[in-house]
Amino acid sequence: MAKPKVEVINDLLGYEGLKIIQRPDIFNFSLDSTLLANFVTINKGDKLIVDLGCGNGYIPIFLTLRTKAKIIGVEIQEEIYDLAKRSVSYNGLDEQITIYHDDLKTIHKKIGSSIYDVVTCNPPFFKYNDSSNINESIYQTIARHEVMATLDDIVKTSNILLKDKGTLALVHRAERLIDVIDVLKKYNFALKRLQFVYSKKKAQSALAILIEAKKKGSNGGLKILPPLYVYNEKNEYTKEILAIFNYKKENTNVKKTKDLSK
Amino acid sequence: MAKPKVEVINDLLGYEGLKIIQRPDIFNFSLDSTLLANFVTINKGDKLIVDLGCGNGYIPIFLTLRTKAKIIGVEIQEEIYDLAKRSVSYNGLDEQITIYHDDLKTIHKKIGSSIYDVVTCNPPFFKYNDSSNINESIYQTIARHEVMATLDDIVKTSNILLKDKGTLALVHRAERLIDVIDVLKKYNFALKRLQFVYSKKKAQSALAILIEAKKKGSNGGLKILPPLYVYNEKNEYTKEILAIFNYKKENTNVKKTKDLSK
Repeated sequence: MAKPKVEVINDLLGYEGLKIIQRPDIFNFSLDSTLLANFVTINKGDKLIVDLGCGNGYIPIFLTLRTKAKIIGVEIQEEIYDLAKRSVSYNGLDEQITIYHDDLKTIHKKIGSSIYDVVTCNPPFFKYNDSSNINESIYQTIARHEVMATLDDIVKTSNILLKDKGTLALVHRAERLIDVIDVLKKYNFALKRLQFVYSKKKAQSALAILIEAKKKGSNGGLKILPPLYVYNEKNEYTKEILAIFNYKKENTNVKKTKDLSK
Repeated sequence: MAKPKVEVINDLLGYEGLKIIQRPDIFNFSLDSTLLANFVTINKGDKLIVDLGCGNGYIPIFLTLRTKAKIIGVEIQEEIYDLAKRSVSYNGLDEQITIYHDDLKTIHKKIGSSIYDVVTCNPPFFKYNDSSNINESIYQTIARHEVMATLDDIVKTSNILLKDKGTLALVHRAERLIDVIDVLKKYNFALKRLQFVYSKKKAQSALAILIEAKKKGSNGGLKILPPLYVYNEKNEYTKEILAIFNYKKENTNVKKTKDLSK
């Protein structure tokens, strides 16, 4: 018997009233996306942004809080694309955000090359030969593993999409730092900002990295920002994370909307 | 009229009674060396260590607190080599430490290849075309700028000196992270540990990086350690830095020994 397909509508953040439609069985947004959407530099004049592998549209929707630029999301998995599209509509953001059900590797043929100011991507973190995907659904495997797109594909596409001096912002696992730096170099990106994310102050190693690079940027001037800690010693979110969420505890934050299996 | 050449003998650290002979006009050890000597992984079985560009011998002398391994220091500037050699003797460490007055680029011809367990280096931080050396002495220029040895030379030599799986530990300016990673890759080192050093918690960017890599190591398993902060909000050393110094305020910490100009 198939599991019931339950959708939930969560608050995107603790303010502005934005919502996000989720399917806990196939795709929920992750903290990484929150950190990336908060981290990426968006300049006043930026007019066109692409989020590659946009999942349920979390990053495009978050970015509407920060910019009036047009935002494109690209998602290859139809059911997740469908969540994203409906989340955008639910928030009345169809004017600002367009979601494509497409392969990011060839999306430039539809949306144009060398015209984007910013590309964001929360990519699959794991190589596909890792053995950690045994208990996942195919949706999760594709979102988390480099099945449909590798880091190389993502940076290559970003290079095609971006203007010269355009900004690419990524989040990745800390232990893949070297891979990220190698691939950015291969496609002629200059690293400009790095931030390391630790689960807590006493963590032995960083968990994640936030990376920003410029297409055909000049080398030098790399900033390594102060570290971000996710949890305090009581295992609660730190003030800096709560400041991103602007989290309000009194919100129950989850309501079920419909059960698609019925 | 030439400036008087004043030597001072400082405590190397706040404990163990080790001393270091310094010449404020040409060479004092820097905090970077302290952090590197504290950071580098030394395993119980390690028998041979080299410090490239050892300055006045600070790192070799510090390392005697951590290991019984034989330690070689290499310094190209004769007057600084002389300080190092006398500091070693002053501490009664001639059995454990040997200082060579030599060029690190060719030192393997004298001390042997592929036999060392650990190489440390606090290299010149600046490229020679930087304009920041105008007010420096030639000693300072050579110690701080890539005049006599570049990062490439240092990593190339380290690769020659080290056993397979041997450890290379470096300190460098944070903004040269990418250069360091590129050169390590070129000479077949796998990055294993990274630590970022910030002047204080509110610093906008890290100042320095501590890097450890293994010759012909397998990729993966990179640890990005918790950040180190040098100063607290009162501009005093933080507890973590004081723990390295085990600093005792009651020590005046400096005594003049002789004025060589007389």
